[in-house]
Amino acid sequence: MNQAKKIEVTDVILRDAHQSLIATRMRTEDMLPICEKLDQVGYWSLEVWGGATFDACVRFLKEDPWERLRQLRAALPNTRLQMLLRGQNLLGYRHYADDVVEAFVAKAAKNGIDVFRVFDALNDIRNLETAMKAVKKAGKHAQGTICYTTSPVHTPGLFVKQAIAMRDMGADSIAIKDMAGLLTPYATYDLVAALKAELDLPVVVHSHSTAGLAPLCQLKAIEAGADRIDTAISSFANGTSHPATEGQVAALRGTAYDTGLDLELLAEIADYFREVRKKYHQFESEFTREDVSVQINQVPGGMMSNLANQLKEQNALDKIREVFAEIPRVRKDLGYPPLVTPTSQIVGTQAVYNVLAGERYKTITNEVKRYLQGGYGAAPAEVDAQLQKKAIGNESVDVGRPADLLKPELNKLREDIGDLALTEEDVLTFAMFPDLGREFLQQRAEGTLKPEELLPPDAAKGAKLGQA
Amino acid sequence: MNQAKKIEVTDVILRDAHQSLIATRMRTEDMLPICEKLDQVGYWSLEVWGGATFDACVRFLKEDPWERLRQLRAALPNTRLQMLLRGQNLLGYRHYADDVVEAFVAKAAKNGIDVFRVFDALNDIRNLETAMKAVKKAGKHAQGTICYTTSPVHTPGLFVKQAIAMRDMGADSIAIKDMAGLLTPYATYDLVAALKAELDLPVVVHSHSTAGLAPLCQLKAIEAGADRIDTAISSFANGTSHPATEGQVAALRGTAYDTGLDLELLAEIADYFREVRKKYHQFESEFTREDVSVQINQVPGGMMSNLANQLKEQNALDKIREVFAEIPRVRKDLGYPPLVTPTSQIVGTQAVYNVLAGERYKTITNEVKRYLQGGYGAAPAEVDAQLQKKAIGNESVDVGRPADLLKPELNKLREDIGDLALTEEDVLTFAMFPDLGREFLQQRAEGTLKPEELLPPDAAKGAKLGQA
Ligand SMILES: [Co+2]
Ligand SMILES: [Co+2]
Repeated sequence: MNQAKKIEVTDVILRDAHQSLIATRMRTEDMLPICEKLDQVGYWSLEVWGGATFDACVRFLKEDPWERLRQLRAALPNTRLQMLLRGQNLLGYRHYADDVVEAFVAKAAKNGIDVFRVFDALNDIRNLETAMKAVKKAGKHAQGTICYTTSPVHTPGLFVKQAIAMRDMGADSIAIKDMAGLLTPYATYDLVAALKAELDLPVVVHSHSTAGLAPLCQLKAIEAGADRIDTAISSFANGTSHPATEGQVAALRGTAYDTGLDLELLAEIADYFREVRKKYHQFESEFTREDVSVQINQVPGGMMSNLANQLKEQNALDKIREVFAEIPRVRKDLGYPPLVTPTSQIVGTQAVYNVLAGERYKTITNEVKRYLQGGYGAAPAEVDAQLQKKAIGNESVDVGRPADLLKPELNKLREDIGDLALTEEDVLTFAMFPDLGREFLQQRAEGTLKPEELLPPDAAKGAKLGQA
Repeated sequence: MNQAKKIEVTDVILRDAHQSLIATRMRTEDMLPICEKLDQVGYWSLEVWGGATFDACVRFLKEDPWERLRQLRAALPNTRLQMLLRGQNLLGYRHYADDVVEAFVAKAAKNGIDVFRVFDALNDIRNLETAMKAVKKAGKHAQGTICYTTSPVHTPGLFVKQAIAMRDMGADSIAIKDMAGLLTPYATYDLVAALKAELDLPVVVHSHSTAGLAPLCQLKAIEAGADRIDTAISSFANGTSHPATEGQVAALRGTAYDTGLDLELLAEIADYFREVRKKYHQFESEFTREDVSVQINQVPGGMMSNLANQLKEQNALDKIREVFAEIPRVRKDLGYPPLVTPTSQIVGTQAVYNVLAGERYKTITNEVKRYLQGGYGAAPAEVDAQLQKKAIGNESVDVGRPADLLKPELNKLREDIGDLALTEEDVLTFAMFPDLGREFLQQRAEGTLKPEELLPPDAAKGAKLGQA
């Protein structure tokens, strides 16, 4: 312990924790009653919005995500509110034109977001630029994000280069986002130490405890100079979620890194969410438990279960080991993209094709073609030239920022959705999900919004008692 | 990382893991099929016997614990087998005469134990002496144990003094036994560093992950020079059990501390035990989950749930906070004993009396009287003189080793059990549990041994599916 400093805590209980453990299904009605206590804790921030929550609100919960944000803002007057933003993809599944990105960030800021964690699946920072600028323009905290992955090119040096570029872009802090639980304690130490040596910015570690290593990674990160950790209240912690807030607070208590947070208050909040979790029992899955596999084959847990389902549908589950072996080869061919939405799907699906066809790249998916044309941005390393030629022939590779090809589209979106949008926020909801968003706004107008049904809590209780 | 060394691993899956999570109920038939794989891992040792397993075998499973040991010995030819021994209490609930201790250790060694972890609830090493000598006489590994606790007197210095005394007694290694999950990472670092500075013996960290801190504590212990860690295969890990073997192995892989264990083999073993665990679903309890409470009030989890039950029976559950507040006061009056069997019961019950009577020490339990007479050994610190006088009046305090007052008793035990004992091991079973042991031997003779019933696995499966 060579320097004393208070470690700051971001609790992800209202966003990533339930996204990781109960398929993003927590409803606003279960968040509001505990906000008064959450607001007393003294967190550096609460992550409450973005990621898959916007989609889940519109798709399953039939809640207006903007209304959730305003309610949380009102209920948490003393705590920074944070969101996760997929760079130029915002919260949707394609690249948006800059005018949409600018409008979205401005509206998120206006409705209550203080801290924007902005990332790109390829770590191509050109895909962050518009969003970061918009955050700064709104006077908010712009957090530049490193999507952590392992490969011959993903050295601490490469990540430091990325962080410096994000700083030059105006980043107020740097997040290490380890979505798959790939980080190990001493690799974390080395990465954080390298970042702190070259940058004068706060560093945050966001690591999923998929393999059980995240609490250890955060401890070593702190020793290397990290300033902040992402944790989740214990009743929604561990496994594919995050280290437990109480555990990390207790680990640091009485040391030079003391967070200053009150364990008794945290324990009360944990009791609250333990009850809440029971309500969502139908979304519990065995795939969220701690599993060291990602440390063995470097394939994220979510990707493994998706591939298993995909193969099962095609009666080819027996090929799963071959597919796991093919994934790193496809990833190498594509210049080692981090495996996160959408690259995990792009790599995974191509690997399945390669194995099932009995010949590599006999069929090349449209997404791989688009990737090799530069449609998602720059690959971290050189892609395989032969494969690229096979995929796109003589078509040119676009080396610019993908969104540079997109014309302003906000006006068209406004026109398309018309009177169904009562506000600019509604237009942005429609922008994220053309079909789903329209349906949502339509049903809202008709007064027919109906959240998906929850199985009765009594059934869950009965089942649990049966097991006890 | 200032020195490279391979960290050794003891897996407690066959003893402490199921003792902690499913009330010590795992049967030998569920251990044997996986022994071939366990034997290939290259563990420094497997903890397989002692603690509560002897009691559970005789009481619930109607298995001969000696036969279990012999079967495991045969099935694990390449791995050291380890047991936990409560010093002069052996595996029973009173102090035994030296001849019984000597015979027990000799027989345990003969039947297959290589490593004896010997502890005393008060850390009074006079209660370890006979057992340690017997281990050395049998040519086996004697592990001297520190029961970790916190108090004004329990400094690293005090523990180092104890460790030195155990070394002088012949200890081959030193275990830090944190039964309650009280250790924090940096306290662990300091303690291990102090031990390694003063002793040239291997140090092992055995810490329950009750508050979620054990994996962190082990990491810091290793950095401070610890040589070995106790872990449990992931399907029986975490919470009141131990850090997951796979997680700790992955955390150290590729570093100077690499354990050298094969993650794929460990994952296969985890899969096996995940299925086994389902068979014992009726013994699962919500009290085994990770809970930071012990870090808040320093009262071990098991003790808290026992006290809750005790108070509920007396319709006084509303007094539980008062009882929790009284526990540290009683503990102080008694010279800060670690809270572990039997001292946790002694302190807890007296605290309940003190609160329910509305007057402290209006009633003093017989166990507290015996404790204050020196009947369990020396308290770690001065006891409250006034309380002592009130409890035992003018009776003298015994300052000697409690077992010095006990005459040899093995012959009498042999006579008492008579023909029901077919072997010396049977006599020792009877010695541990006079009533239960006799009943067991009787039923064995009659051929009427019948293990407690397990609820059908299908019911569990149904319940789980209902929740999924
Ligand atoms: Co995340
Ligand atoms: Co233990």
